[in-house]
Formats: sequence, C-alpha cells, structure tokens
Amino acid sequence: MIHADIGVIGLAVMGQNLVLNLADHGFSVAVHNRTTATTDAFLSGEAAGKDIAGSHDLGEFVSSIERPRKILLMIKAGAPVDQQIDALLPHLDAGDIIIDGGNSLFTDSQRRTEMLASHGILFVGAGISGGEEGARHGPSIMPGGDPAAWSFVAPIIQSVAADFNGEPCADWIGPGGSGHYVKMVHNGIEYGDMQVIAEAYDLMRRGLDMTPAAMSEQFRTWDKDKLDSYLIEITAEILDHSTDGTPTVDLILDAAGQKGTGKWTVIASMEQGMPVSLVGESVYARMVSALVSERAAAAGVLGDQVEAIGDDPVEVLADLHDALYASKIVSYAQGFMLLRAASEEFGWDLDPGLIAGLWRAGCIIRSQFLDDITSAYRKHPDLPNLLFDEFFASEVAAAVPGWRRTVVRATRAGIPVPAYASALSFFDGYRSSRGPANLIQAQRDYFGAHTYERVDRERGEWFHTDWTGHGGATTSGSYDA
Amino acid sequence: MIHADIGVIGLAVMGQNLVLNLADHGFSVAVHNRTTATTDAFLSGEAAGKDIAGSHDLGEFVSSIERPRKILLMIKAGAPVDQQIDALLPHLDAGDIIIDGGNSLFTDSQRRTEMLASHGILFVGAGISGGEEGARHGPSIMPGGDPAAWSFVAPIIQSVAADFNGEPCADWIGPGGSGHYVKMVHNGIEYGDMQVIAEAYDLMRRGLDMTPAAMSEQFRTWDKDKLDSYLIEITAEILDHSTDGTPTVDLILDAAGQKGTGKWTVIASMEQGMPVSLVGESVYARMVSALVSERAAAAGVLGDQVEAIGDDPVEVLADLHDALYASKIVSYAQGFMLLRAASEEFGWDLDPGLIAGLWRAGCIIRSQFLDDITSAYRKHPDLPNLLFDEFFASEVAAAVPGWRRTVVRATRAGIPVPAYASALSFFDGYRSSRGPANLIQAQRDYFGAHTYERVDRERGEWFHTDWTGHGGATTSGSYDA
Repeated sequence: MIHADIGVIGLAVMGQNLVLNLADHGFSVAVHNRTTATTDAFLSGEAAGKDIAGSHDLGEFVSSIERPRKILLMIKAGAPVDQQIDALLPHLDAGDIIIDGGNSLFTDSQRRTEMLASHGILFVGAGISGGEEGARHGPSIMPGGDPAAWSFVAPIIQSVAADFNGEPCADWIGPGGSGHYVKMVHNGIEYGDMQVIAEAYDLMRRGLDMTPAAMSEQFRTWDKDKLDSYLIEITAEILDHSTDGTPTVDLILDAAGQKGTGKWTVIASMEQGMPVSLVGESVYARMVSALVSERAAAAGVLGDQVEAIGDDPVEVLADLHDALYASKIVSYAQGFMLLRAASEEFGWDLDPGLIAGLWRAGCIIRSQFLDDITSAYRKHPDLPNLLFDEFFASEVAAAVPGWRRTVVRATRAGIPVPAYASALSFFDGYRSSRGPANLIQAQRDYFGAHTYERVDRERGEWFHTDWTGHGGATTSGSYDA
Repeated sequence: MIHADIGVIGLAVMGQNLVLNLADHGFSVAVHNRTTATTDAFLSGEAAGKDIAGSHDLGEFVSSIERPRKILLMIKAGAPVDQQIDALLPHLDAGDIIIDGGNSLFTDSQRRTEMLASHGILFVGAGISGGEEGARHGPSIMPGGDPAAWSFVAPIIQSVAADFNGEPCADWIGPGGSGHYVKMVHNGIEYGDMQVIAEAYDLMRRGLDMTPAAMSEQFRTWDKDKLDSYLIEITAEILDHSTDGTPTVDLILDAAGQKGTGKWTVIASMEQGMPVSLVGESVYARMVSALVSERAAAAGVLGDQVEAIGDDPVEVLADLHDALYASKIVSYAQGFMLLRAASEEFGWDLDPGLIAGLWRAGCIIRSQFLDDITSAYRKHPDLPNLLFDEFFASEVAAAVPGWRRTVVRATRAGIPVPAYASALSFFDGYRSSRGPANLIQAQRDYFGAHTYERVDRERGEWFHTDWTGHGGATTSGSYDA
C-alpha cells in the first residue's frame, strides 16, 4: 500500500478502534506507533486482512499517505503532541493536514494552529467522544482549527462519525482551539451527567434501601422516557451486572478518578465569568470521593448515618426523576452559557444548534434530550439561555416541585446532593430579579471603597458611601475581594 | 530626609494609609508615585508634618533609603509590578529588598523571587488584608519569599501590623509564592464569608419580610456571640445606614463585582484537587448576580416569586444562625485543606496555626472564630481536617439540625442558598464512608475502559470488567472523563 487516504499515529484503544472504523468505511489507513511491537500486534491481529498498513519508520509512514496528507494523532495530550508535531514537520509538505484527536487543552490547539500555519501546514484540533465503542462504530467529532482544512478532511471525518437521523455527528466548529474547547465543555457536561445519576443512585441505595437489581429496573424505565440517554442506559446495565454472584457495582471502590477536562471546564468558567456550577460541584464531588481514608476517618468522628426516606417510594422516585431531569436542563443551560461567552471572547462565532446536533449520537452524553436542545437553538440561534426556550421553560416548571422535594428529602436524610442542590440554587438565583448581592457590594464599598451602582441610576455610574462617617475620599486600588 | 527606613511606591488608598501607619510607628518613609501630582498632594496634605519625604525621580527615591533598602510596592498586580521591578533594578544594590504588597498571583511571586535572587536582590511577596482601615491602623500581613529578607523586614512589618492579644498579625509564611498563596486563600474565604451573610440577608428579606433595621439588630446580636466578626459587624452597620431616608442597601444594585482572587482560589482548588466548594459557589453566585438584565428576563419567563417562610421567625433565625456558622466552619475546613495540599505540592511547610493566628485581627475575615481555629491547629498542627478537631466536630454536630432545616426552608421557599447547601453536601459527602462514586467508576470503565479499584483488594490494584461481553482487552488512553 502506497497511497493511504489517511495516516493515524497512536494505537491505544481509541486509535485502534478509529483505524478499524476508517477501514470499514473504505478508507486505506497507514498506521504508526512509538512502540513498534504494538503496531505489529495490531497489524497481525485485528487489522489483518483490512486495508491497513503500518510503518515503524515515521518518514516511511508519512510518504505512504496521499497528498495533501491527512495525519490523525491519537496520542496523549500535552507535550507528546508537540513532540510528535516536531518529529513530523521535516517530513511534511505545504498543504498537509495534522489532526489532533486527543483531549488537548484548547489553548494548545490555538497555538498549534498558528505555529503550523506559519509552516504552511493546516492544523485541526478535533475533539472526539464516544469511548471505545464510539471510536469503533461512530463517534461524535468536533473539529476546529484552520478552516482551509475542512473541505479535505470532511469526507473522511463525516463518514466515520455517528449519524443522527442521517445527519453526521461531525461538523466544523470554528477557528483556532474552538473544537477542543467544545469537546472540553462536552466533557464537563459529561461529569455533570454522571454526577446527577450518581446522586439518584445514592438516594435509591441509602434513602430507599433498593437493591442494584431494583435500581437497574428503575433506570431502564427512565431510559424509555425523556431521560433516554446512553449514560442512563449503561447505568441500568451496570447495576444489573454481577461478578461471582455479587453485584459488580458493590465491589468497586467509591473513589472516582478524573482526567482533567472537568477541571478545565471549571477553570474556563472562572475565566469567562460564567456560573457553570453543576460541573463545578461534580468535579468537587469526585475530589471528595478520592479522599477515601479521610472519609473513613470523618465517618468515625462525625458519624456516617443517614435517615431513611419515609415517604412513599413511588412518589420519591417520581420526584427523583424530575430532580435529575431539571438538574440536567440547568447543567446544559450553564454549559451553553459558557460556550456563548467563549465564542464572544475569542471571536469563534459558535453555532449552539450545530454543537447540540453533534452531541445527539456517538458521544457519551448522547440523548433524546439533546435533540430537544438542537431544536431549541435551531429555532432561536440567539437564545441567551436555554431556560428561555418555551419547551425547556415549561419542562423545568413542571419538574420544579419534585426537584424541590428531592433536595428537601436528601437534606433531611443526610445524603449529599451537591449537583441537584447547586442547580436549584442557580435556578432560584437566576430567576431572581432582585438578589442579595447589593449587600455584598455595600460590604465591598465599606471595607475597600470599591464603589457600587444604584438601582435608580444608569449602569456604569459608580457611588461611594462614607459608611463610618470618617472614611477618606480616595477610592480603592486592587485590594481585597 | 536622606536615610529613610523604608520606601513605598504607589500612593493609592492602601499605599497612602500604609505610609501614614509606618510614620505613626516611628519609621521614616520615602514615597514615590508614577503620577507626581499624587505625591505632591499627599505630601502637602495628610503626610504634612510627618517623617515622610517624596521624590519624583526614582533614582533619588532609591538613594534616600537606608541600606539594605526595603522598598514596598503598593501598585496594581500583574505587569505593572514587573515594569516597576525592571525600573528599580539598575538603582539597587545586592542585599536590597523588594516587598510586593499587592494581590499578586502566587506564581508571579514565585518567579520574581527566583529572578531577583539571581541579581542578589531579596524579594518578598506579602499579602496584606484589612482594606483602608486596616492599612491605616494595622492590617494582617502574610509575607513569603526569600527567607533571608525576613530578619530585615520583620521589625517594620510586625510594628505596623494589627495585633491579637499582643501577638502581631504578621509572620513569615514560607518561601517562594507562599505569602501570596495564603493571601489568595484568605480572599477566597472572604468571598465565602460574604456569601453566607448574603444568604442570611436574603432569607430574612424575602423569607421573613424583615426590614433592614430589624436585620441590622439581628446581625448586631449575632456579632456578640460565636459569629463575632468584622464582616458581621459591618453588615449590622450597613443595614442601619440610610441615604435621604431610604435604607442605603435598598438603593444599591444587586450586581457584585470581583477582583480575581476568588477565581484564583477556585482555579487553585482545581489544580490541587481539593473540594473548596463553598468558595466556588460564592464566586458563581457573584457571576449570577452580575447577569442583571438576563435575570430580569429570566424572572419574566420563569417567575421570580418566592414563598414566605411560615415557621416561627424566632426559630427560623436561630436555625439560620446555625446554618451560617456551620457553613463557615466547612468553608474554613476546605480552605485549610487547600493550603495543606499546596504546602505539600510546593514544599512550603505551611503552619496552619500560624496562618490562622495572622487572620485573627487586622484583616477582613477577622473573627473570634479564627482564635478557635488557631487553638485547634496549635494543639494539633497535623490535623488532617479542621472537622476532626473535638471542638469543631462538636460545634458542627450541634449546628447540623438547624442547618438542615434552613436549607429545607430555603429550598421550599425558592430562595437560593448555594453556599449553605454546598457546604452541607460537602459535609454529608465527607462523612460518608461509602459514597456513590463506585457507580461513576463503573461508568468510566464501561465506556472508556478506565479500570477501577475494588473494596476487597489493595489500593493501586486496577480491574476492568467487560461489561457488554464484547469489549476488547485494551485499556483506555487519555480520553473522556
């Protein structure tokens, strides 16, 4: 094989599965891996008999690809990507295209797009979601970077992506690091989706004393209504899985790891000044979970008893359903607030309807619900907030009573619901035409002469009160909060 | 004047007040400001007749200071500090000391300490808290950086600082950027303290329909018990203040600003993997408050009505007191978790008892409560968590019922309590010997082959389940959450 349609570097699980997926769709693929034994094992194993060829030598690998070359990196994000790009550069020609399919930090993709453009190379930072299965059978792909690359890579990327009702779950996001930014927010939302499910599980387990099998059945029922989603579906399967007669979930240590994109989403929310609080609480909940021995010690000092929820389980579960659903709506509303702010800040002109559309299939957060979000944004691309959409406003309104009752029950029982409670506080704060921050402004003016705006004056006019009667006229510098 | 004890650059409100404070304590002070008119106005105004001299020329300013020179920068954090250091360098001699008293990012102080050490100059990054009044009459000062500087600057810094029962609220924090890190966490905690007060205010206002005057009285009562603190005290004064017959607080727009250190604390919590959730929610609450026009629109779409709290106001207020107090304990526990993690990561060997001690007077978060924290850490410097201290464990236990009832009431009423609810979720999660994160690990293993640990095996042994019966053997790379 001499004229591969695309080259793939990196043969960990995602890379291998994408290569097989590409071959299934009729593309010839050149592969390369730092550890050559991996390449050999793959070629003589799963890749055998397919239009897949491997090279141990990077130059040979590059020259086996049709020009303009499309080279997909499926390697660890961070320095390895820069090293791989440096190693590739001498072998490339102007117009060649490097696609980074890892979970790279968007600022790195921003920088690489510019750096490679100066060498005449087109860079694409493509977020890819779907895990093992998605990579193998159709992931969701969020490519951004050098716009000149899109027409060359679109036919390949859109072929191997998932499709939703015939629309490919892969489309051009925007310039620079926008593809990886959108993937980062996707992952942040994924942290949130997993947390809202974990809270339901915890309430079922400790509040209602349900068995994993009974919970599985509940999640399976929910998967048939508006909660229909991949994560609810696999939760039902997980809860039904046994190892040597014991529910597997009961054997697993309650210490959740993280790979960084959740943290990045929270950091990005801080940088944009957007309250993505449900993701924030989800990341914090994982941190708490990781403190295994501290939690054991705390249980000894503070007690870890919870109160059973005495109410009718049927009602409790119906309310829980609404709490999960409403929290999810808030989480997506917050995520799109962040995307909107980033789009303005970086001049990306992101299309929320297009983005929601890409998440309807292939990726980990895929759901029926995302089709509703797609519709909302396609109808009103400038919707300032998902909660303003008639459909979602009425969905939330209908869920509010059960949502409140769920937070009340959990609060009384002593079962943590950081995501449900945070989403509800956000909801109640966001719909408050008059919140309590006037007091905070008064405090800041009192101790730091920070000045404040007034309700009876124009925005942008600033006032200072001499609260103590002996303050100076000087306004504050950049001290204190 | 030719031999000033110290030079101060920057004459905004904090700089001016610190200079007057230094002069009051018998130090001769040389001053310099970029805008020379400010220097002149200060010298002929408040500084007149004191041992304070000004130079328009930087070289003249430097040469008027006794060697080794101590030069305190009271200028805007960020690039201006680097520019000022660059401008100063040619005028300095080996052994001279630059003290940055602004709210600098700790990594900048880390970098400046190293850079200046290579020139033989000793750098001190000193967090200073206390606002206008503190700077004038005794702030809390958190110096860190080049340890060789401390013996030279200690006599001056400790003289002008606040004191608590005879102990100066200024002491050496540690090397590198540790002083500014501690100040950053101080400010994050300050955001939290302000938010827990704002939530009490909101519940009094919208839940109990209290007048500002009645609220003022309530806060004044609380200021006499275990909530005794500067912020509670000024809240009582603020709520009692009128402008032309209207309570001033009612004239102030409910849109809170921020200066960055709250965000930095949250970002630092993400970097250290420590769940500083109350500060996180406090920063998010300010972000929500800043969305003034969006909130007005949301109130139109979603309704902004709240339910009155029907219970006996005396009980409601007693419970509210406990909610505020318990949330505060959690917030400080979280803040010290972050300091502990950063100390380990950066090798700073931070002393929590010393740090809490510095916060007992002079600074914005000063309180009786901080003396209890100081005692707890002085007794057990290696306390893994403040909640493990007998005193705080029993204080929290006593406050839990009222805290839960407060979150329940607010949740039902529709009044947001993000900080109280988040702190309670943290508390309930932290004391859970078995939380729900096993389900999250199962999900991650299901879709991404992330592997998990087991409850019946050693930590560090990782397992993978083939959940679907058709998964591969390969484990995941760095994809997905």
